[in-house]
Amino acid sequence: MSDRKGPTTTHRSELVDLDAEQTFELDRRHVFHSWSAQAALAPMVITKAQGSHVWDGEGHRLLDFTSQLVFTNLGHQHPRVVSAVQEQAAHLCTVAPQHANAARSEAARLVASHTPEGLDKVFFTNGGADANEHAVRMARLHTGRPKVLSTYRSYHGGTQLAINLTGDPRRWPNDQAASGTVHFFGPYLYRSAFHATTQEEEGERALEHLAQVIALEGPGTIAAIVLESIPGTAGIMVPPPGYLSGVRELCDRHGILLVLDEVMAGFGRAGRWFACEHDAVVPDLLTFAKGVNSGYVPLGGVAISAEVAATFAERPYPGGLTYSGHPLACAAAVATIRTMEDDRVVEHAAALGEEVFAPGLEALRAEHEWIGDVRGTGAFWAVELVADRATREPLAPYVGTSPQLGAVVAACKRRGLLPLAAGNRIHLVPPLTTSATEVQEAIGILGEALGEAAATA
Amino acid sequence: MSDRKGPTTTHRSELVDLDAEQTFELDRRHVFHSWSAQAALAPMVITKAQGSHVWDGEGHRLLDFTSQLVFTNLGHQHPRVVSAVQEQAAHLCTVAPQHANAARSEAARLVASHTPEGLDKVFFTNGGADANEHAVRMARLHTGRPKVLSTYRSYHGGTQLAINLTGDPRRWPNDQAASGTVHFFGPYLYRSAFHATTQEEEGERALEHLAQVIALEGPGTIAAIVLESIPGTAGIMVPPPGYLSGVRELCDRHGILLVLDEVMAGFGRAGRWFACEHDAVVPDLLTFAKGVNSGYVPLGGVAISAEVAATFAERPYPGGLTYSGHPLACAAAVATIRTMEDDRVVEHAAALGEEVFAPGLEALRAEHEWIGDVRGTGAFWAVELVADRATREPLAPYVGTSPQLGAVVAACKRRGLLPLAAGNRIHLVPPLTTSATEVQEAIGILGEALGEAAATA
Ligand SMILES: Cc1ncc(COP(=O)(O)O)c(C=O)c1O
Ligand SMILES: Cc1ncc(COP(=O)(O)O)c(C=O)c1O
Repeated sequence: MSDRKGPTTTHRSELVDLDAEQTFELDRRHVFHSWSAQAALAPMVITKAQGSHVWDGEGHRLLDFTSQLVFTNLGHQHPRVVSAVQEQAAHLCTVAPQHANAARSEAARLVASHTPEGLDKVFFTNGGADANEHAVRMARLHTGRPKVLSTYRSYHGGTQLAINLTGDPRRWPNDQAASGTVHFFGPYLYRSAFHATTQEEEGERALEHLAQVIALEGPGTIAAIVLESIPGTAGIMVPPPGYLSGVRELCDRHGILLVLDEVMAGFGRAGRWFACEHDAVVPDLLTFAKGVNSGYVPLGGVAISAEVAATFAERPYPGGLTYSGHPLACAAAVATIRTMEDDRVVEHAAALGEEVFAPGLEALRAEHEWIGDVRGTGAFWAVELVADRATREPLAPYVGTSPQLGAVVAACKRRGLLPLAAGNRIHLVPPLTTSATEVQEAIGILGEALGEAAATA
Repeated sequence: MSDRKGPTTTHRSELVDLDAEQTFELDRRHVFHSWSAQAALAPMVITKAQGSHVWDGEGHRLLDFTSQLVFTNLGHQHPRVVSAVQEQAAHLCTVAPQHANAARSEAARLVASHTPEGLDKVFFTNGGADANEHAVRMARLHTGRPKVLSTYRSYHGGTQLAINLTGDPRRWPNDQAASGTVHFFGPYLYRSAFHATTQEEEGERALEHLAQVIALEGPGTIAAIVLESIPGTAGIMVPPPGYLSGVRELCDRHGILLVLDEVMAGFGRAGRWFACEHDAVVPDLLTFAKGVNSGYVPLGGVAISAEVAATFAERPYPGGLTYSGHPLACAAAVATIRTMEDDRVVEHAAALGEEVFAPGLEALRAEHEWIGDVRGTGAFWAVELVADRATREPLAPYVGTSPQLGAVVAACKRRGLLPLAAGNRIHLVPPLTTSATEVQEAIGILGEALGEAAATA
């Protein structure tokens, strides 16, 4: 056998060299896609991206108001994050979780410096689903209780436990094993489960409902309530003021842990570092992913209170993963968080929400019959489309889409805007670094698209 | 508000600048570690790594015979993989899973070109646990059956379902919810569950046992048998020839899917692209992670047969994740696989096993009373330490460690070798690119360490 002296070096580029057609062809032959029937898929090829724009396989430039899956919070190809990835790659790509390394230590410090008071330990994961899986594990072991409550109209991830926590139709085909999850209704004034007519009433009644569910499930059986601080995929339902703090009180009364899922709402998306700051609530466990490093390298995690961490001071925490605290992912997080601090990105997102999105979308609603509700905060907005404003009949069913929604999205794309369509809603969730002008441009395009689609419907 | 024109650029380095002491201090303050009681942790700081070596916080160089957690199959800082990460970062860091991109298409093609015949579709995940979660999901939906069989002495990951599949003590504190998992015994001649005395007998009896478990659980209730082709963490028990093909036959007879977990054994570790090639077995689903891109960026996945893929041709697959097919991770996979092909890395690993590890460790066993068993293939070896060769009493308990094991590991480290200790075993699992000389050096150090530890015990 040959004795290897070291790796062969090479001077040719390692960049994958496929054109858009080859990319599409190989994708259809070999890539199995999330959440989809595979036969009819025709994914858009993305060949290039910069800031708030992406380019498709035909060279069209689109304003990316999806942030892909609501994660490129600093936009595409931010030079500081790209540099951080490149420099860390040159220095030290990977280290196992049982060792310590500089990128992970600094990322943990930075994350903990922004999480609510007292959440000072960070368990890193690869994404949001595993963050929620581990948060629930910690809560069950900390309390010794089996059940976990979460809301209908929520999304917590695609692994077995996380999908059972999830309150959307993607849970249905997965509900095979007893998972100890119980679903309740959260506040959603536009389609109130409580016949409420004001935000205040909705918040109060939602808390009353939750108190009843807790009483009837048995407080002593409940380890945790898992909530998105602002439910994202399910419709960006900003909770009424006082709701989250009311849930916190219910948890305290019954020794239940509060787990806030900030995977989508966190890291500036809602105009605060974490959306729970809107109600000044401190959870026991906070899960994050996506915005933590703008999605440049897979990363998620759980921020842990001192009390929960203490449970695992002497007793081993029975959970882990190979890439916990991956240096490359952590280096991207460090650069992302520093950039957000230095460039006041969170403040910019808050201002975009108050000064551009809110007035812009309200004006759009005044003009377009199809818009039933507009809601959001920061760079996190939903426009709910209805066939009839009086009955609030959705313009697309709960599961699936409709010709009208399809027409709106197609008209947006033709005009250079990539929106995120979900059920009967259009979500506008651009990078937090998007300019006011770009937001105005996007709202203008959405208005034209609504006009065109309504005229031909 | 300011209208942002674009991101601020900067010319200072984005590399995290902490010395070893600061790294350690921040780690202890903010990082929550996998699988551990947190209070007493004193993780080794890794400041640098190159090829088969790492450097600790005090500047000591160590031969890394752990491959971290058995994933740096090309060693540390391989220039082609580093370049691929850097070039992809400069070009396009991230794209959502619903779109197509060149790095993902090419990675899927390359993975499929090496997986056994017919496994031509790839669903990418972030790591091994979620790969197994999704494989089980696919198997349950494909068969319409609830149960999944896996072996005692196995590891399949840390999320709720994956840890319930797992057959090691880390499952115990997690066994809270009915998960539909059932455990059986696999072949392990040195500690035979079947009172066998030869490999052939062990393999036959293990198959007989599995046939009984299937009959008694109810064949029609079993969706899948999930097996590590070679159980890794549990002790690198290379199955007797014919065992895996016997399991394949049992599966075929009963309409059960065979899921082979190649997260650790795959991508050259066992001296083949996939360890199941040793028995020429084709599973229905094959899970991978770790070696697919040498762990430089988190990546895992499921390779899917045409039959299983067809189940989700018209019916949506109800599973997914934000970073499925992450371009940066896929670019690292492309460079890793191309390097493995170009440099004949798998062949090198096979030769290391046959020509260096096997004779070297056999010679060591002849010299050291503590060595009860030596087994492995490729760059995938376990040395099992016993207090007594006749009774085979382990030198450390099933859960935890012992002074003797601790002494062996400490003596290895002092001499510049980082081994992987697991229960009463020392695993030698270096990068596949490690030279024969380095393997000989490591075996020499292990011999000295065994001598020293035995002398002082
Ligand atoms: C609120 C929330 N939680 C969890 C997840 C799951 O994250 P991942 O896809 O990284 O597993 C998502 C993903 O969209 C999310 O929006
Ligand atoms: C055989 C096997 N399967 C699955 C896993 C889990 O992989 P991950 O830690 O990436 O979730 C491992 C990790 O060691 C493994 O060895």
